[in-house]
Amino acid sequence: MTAYSPPYRDMLFVINELFGLEKINHLEPYQEVTSDILSAVLEEAGRFSREVLSPINQKGDQEGAVIRDGKVTTAMGFREAYRSFVEAGWNGLTGPTGYGGQGLPLLLGAAVEEMWHSSNMAFTLCPLLTRGAIEAIHYAGSQALKEKYLPAMVSGRWAGTMNLTEPQAGSDLSSVKTKAVPDGVGYRIFGQKIFITYGDHDFTENIIHLVLARLPDAPPGVKGLSLFVVPKVLVDTGGQLGKTNDIRTVSLEHKLGIHGSPTCVLAYGDGEGAYGEILGEPNRGLELMFVMMNAARFSVGVQGLALAEKAYQEASGYAHNRIQGIPVGMTSPVPIVHHPDVRRMLASMKSRVEACRVLAYYGGLMLDLAHAEENVAKRQRAQERSDLLTPIVKGFCTEMGVNVASEALQVFGGMGYIEETGAAQTMRDARITTIYEGTTGIQANDLLGRKLIRDQGAGVMALLEEIKSSLAIHANTDALKPLADTLSDVVKGVESATWHLMRESTTRPATAFGAAVPYLHLMGWLVTAWLMLESAGLADANKGAGEAGEIFYRTKWATVNYFFRHELPKYKVFQEQVCNGGETLMALDPQWL
Amino acid sequence: MTAYSPPYRDMLFVINELFGLEKINHLEPYQEVTSDILSAVLEEAGRFSREVLSPINQKGDQEGAVIRDGKVTTAMGFREAYRSFVEAGWNGLTGPTGYGGQGLPLLLGAAVEEMWHSSNMAFTLCPLLTRGAIEAIHYAGSQALKEKYLPAMVSGRWAGTMNLTEPQAGSDLSSVKTKAVPDGVGYRIFGQKIFITYGDHDFTENIIHLVLARLPDAPPGVKGLSLFVVPKVLVDTGGQLGKTNDIRTVSLEHKLGIHGSPTCVLAYGDGEGAYGEILGEPNRGLELMFVMMNAARFSVGVQGLALAEKAYQEASGYAHNRIQGIPVGMTSPVPIVHHPDVRRMLASMKSRVEACRVLAYYGGLMLDLAHAEENVAKRQRAQERSDLLTPIVKGFCTEMGVNVASEALQVFGGMGYIEETGAAQTMRDARITTIYEGTTGIQANDLLGRKLIRDQGAGVMALLEEIKSSLAIHANTDALKPLADTLSDVVKGVESATWHLMRESTTRPATAFGAAVPYLHLMGWLVTAWLMLESAGLADANKGAGEAGEIFYRTKWATVNYFFRHELPKYKVFQEQVCNGGETLMALDPQWL
Repeated sequence: MTAYSPPYRDMLFVINELFGLEKINHLEPYQEVTSDILSAVLEEAGRFSREVLSPINQKGDQEGAVIRDGKVTTAMGFREAYRSFVEAGWNGLTGPTGYGGQGLPLLLGAAVEEMWHSSNMAFTLCPLLTRGAIEAIHYAGSQALKEKYLPAMVSGRWAGTMNLTEPQAGSDLSSVKTKAVPDGVGYRIFGQKIFITYGDHDFTENIIHLVLARLPDAPPGVKGLSLFVVPKVLVDTGGQLGKTNDIRTVSLEHKLGIHGSPTCVLAYGDGEGAYGEILGEPNRGLELMFVMMNAARFSVGVQGLALAEKAYQEASGYAHNRIQGIPVGMTSPVPIVHHPDVRRMLASMKSRVEACRVLAYYGGLMLDLAHAEENVAKRQRAQERSDLLTPIVKGFCTEMGVNVASEALQVFGGMGYIEETGAAQTMRDARITTIYEGTTGIQANDLLGRKLIRDQGAGVMALLEEIKSSLAIHANTDALKPLADTLSDVVKGVESATWHLMRESTTRPATAFGAAVPYLHLMGWLVTAWLMLESAGLADANKGAGEAGEIFYRTKWATVNYFFRHELPKYKVFQEQVCNGGETLMALDPQWL
Repeated sequence: MTAYSPPYRDMLFVINELFGLEKINHLEPYQEVTSDILSAVLEEAGRFSREVLSPINQKGDQEGAVIRDGKVTTAMGFREAYRSFVEAGWNGLTGPTGYGGQGLPLLLGAAVEEMWHSSNMAFTLCPLLTRGAIEAIHYAGSQALKEKYLPAMVSGRWAGTMNLTEPQAGSDLSSVKTKAVPDGVGYRIFGQKIFITYGDHDFTENIIHLVLARLPDAPPGVKGLSLFVVPKVLVDTGGQLGKTNDIRTVSLEHKLGIHGSPTCVLAYGDGEGAYGEILGEPNRGLELMFVMMNAARFSVGVQGLALAEKAYQEASGYAHNRIQGIPVGMTSPVPIVHHPDVRRMLASMKSRVEACRVLAYYGGLMLDLAHAEENVAKRQRAQERSDLLTPIVKGFCTEMGVNVASEALQVFGGMGYIEETGAAQTMRDARITTIYEGTTGIQANDLLGRKLIRDQGAGVMALLEEIKSSLAIHANTDALKPLADTLSDVVKGVESATWHLMRESTTRPATAFGAAVPYLHLMGWLVTAWLMLESAGLADANKGAGEAGEIFYRTKWATVNYFFRHELPKYKVFQEQVCNGGETLMALDPQWL
């Protein structure tokens, strides 16, 4: 198995050159983020990924987390890795500064997070979920609640979880049954939650569960959901740990992948009820859940990118070392990378990985601006763009991650099917990313319903205008014109698909929503093509003539050109599905399927 | 988990109505195959699949085959199932009549095999490999050799295997090192083989290995390979079993899927050498290997179809039972099949499954005609078509199988990621099909090099002419014209891609072969679109007006229309990759990947 090697050069290119740190470090919270700081953080995170997280990744898969007498033990080395992670201060990297976090921007945080996930996704789910819980508490908690929980969560001394799903309430949380009964001081929680990532583990002395539940007088449906902070171990006013809360870890799921990450069934209130405190206002839990969910969705998009990068590196490493066959036009056996079809697979993977990277980091940048822009109008615009991007980053990057991981396995041939090589683990791990924190279908419904229809297309049109301005510039450059012309076709495709869906949504909403996933893909191709074109502009300016320029730029130029020819044409299929596919889909009666 | 339900109606439609039994049962070997026989065989095979093979499929995955003291034991129930399989006469269904087989056509055999694989692919690999070995011995063996081995192999009393791969010789068999030394009577085999499916097991008292090895004076490369029949237990002239041959099962691979199927490392000749007899002429082993390989490739294509069908059924079953959420336009929670996106996924799966079925069965029909046509010219043409189709059936149906199985898992949402539901097993099992018996890349090279370039496009052009004749008819039908017009575009796309590749292959062969896989996909879309259009023609003639006609025909009509709108447009991407993608691929230096 090829050791993971952080793609520093491309990360720095995207952050420094494509977007530019100056976009954010003029803002008050990010003023310390210089280019030197950026490089130093990436390098240190890369070292930690390679030296600490990567070496235990396969063991995590093989051993998995286990439950014995209701207590969860993680795989060999995971607990120690977590301790190092926390001691090195990584847990609070992007966390709130008022509670011990370093408050670094997500543009940088995305790159760091990419490395964690590439080297050990199962491990990294723990800090990922903790961060979501921190965001929700920081957003809606009372001062007392924040002071009680945030410092230990930001440092990583305590972990956090999201408790949403119940057997009958998955994508549809309106049917959540877990109850929260006021007891004079706080609330008593009764119910069972499933699919709780790191619901129990041996990393920390306490775990802070955020639990979606229903007050006794709550209205039915999603408008009757409240969010509660329910610690595994009760915390007294002085911050000391007291007795264990009434929460029981019932079992662990036996999953396809991410074996290192314990997925728990948790029972609340076998006895007197689990003690919890309400977060924010009663019956407003769903809103808050989306605060933590959006953070998690962005991170899962980064996971998609990270697993794609990992898979690509593994396939590339194998292809450069495995000697097999004499490619056409050659005379002796060579590494399989020289076989045209293997070259094609690697080119395809590389170009898609880099496309996902620009998309995901762009999502990070917009989150930063939405958080820190001082100008209200600009902040508002960044928030809108960020809202639009979240389902695209999540849906597009994870679908890519699954596909790239499967293609990487293919490069390994028969060896890929043998578990020892690790290619199969990467594919198994990646497969969850299009499902959890909202399936691709749920992302697409969010994009169509809340991000397109709700604002009558304003957000999409603003994006298209920005892309068109960019096109107007590049269409005048000889080198970029062919790419710009292609992107211009994509823009037209998105425009027609957008208007089509807006119309359909008023007259035939089911038909419109049947095209939601194709529309999400279409938007993913649009944004990646745009940012890849911008990358090509920089590459063109720096690659020099012939073989003179830095190889990075020459490679980037070739990669973007490959992307435009081989990958981007897929947008047409999605455009056709959106614009012309409604009737034939609706003609297939559900009973016939 | 939804119980497997054989898709009799669609099978009978394809065999009886689309192709027509009369295409083959006027031929001498198949005269007994009436429509009644067909139905009876399918029904019996379906019963066996449901009652015997399906119930042990998950257990096979969970327990797997194990090795202890060099002996392989299969999962609980597998041995008994094999005994029933043989006792019921299934092993010899399409086997040679002179040796106890029933000699039934592959058009029927494909349907039966589809059921075996849908219900238990890991189990079915044993008879699949045996059949390949039978074909090779039947094709090239001396009378004595045939009489010695075939009766027991055809009945299934003994199993067969293919021993090709060595650690350094995978896709490239030229570097096979296993030696065969003449000992006066036969040969002594020395070497190690890997990835031997059912290389050892407890189903049968003997296993007949077909082993690719090199004679002492053999020329280097593929022209020095010979094929040997090497039994696990020596067989005397009277057919009695004697002493155990010098073959040792070294280990079993730990695989991503098909755990029920033991994948062995076999060591030949730890001692005096494993006794073997040569099959056919010295140094002509590769040719013979292709006889058995082609049979296996066709069957693996059927596997792709079978796993897609299984996955679709499971997803459909779940979608009709899982109640979650209120779809747009509805007022209360309903089964998720009513959610437009779930409906889209099921429609996509169903249409692709049916497309794979027409393609795979068409491959079976051509194999039958190539075998049994009395007219030499017709037989020759069928052979050519069959040669052209084999890599397409294998490559296209297995790539579909992998994709459909992954999409089926998506329909299950979080439950799909939990191993208990079985959706994950289907995906893991399916993932091998694009790899073994030649990866998709190898199939594509075969298609491009041996099937397109070698005959200067004659085979492809003959196929295109036949499709055009068909188009000329349908373009005059109002109902079919839109579909015919689309297919006409596909034909043009294939023509331009074909000529482009023919030219490239003479001037820039590496560029041409870099487009081999996209070309294979393109050909897959062409053939499936053609046969789906023919299916639509029959559906249109039978579906009646409004809601009068049989639901099968109305569904088929809707499914083909969905296929043409949503799936078929993908051909354009492949066409573009073939016709316009060469330069950007070759611009990416292997060192940069």
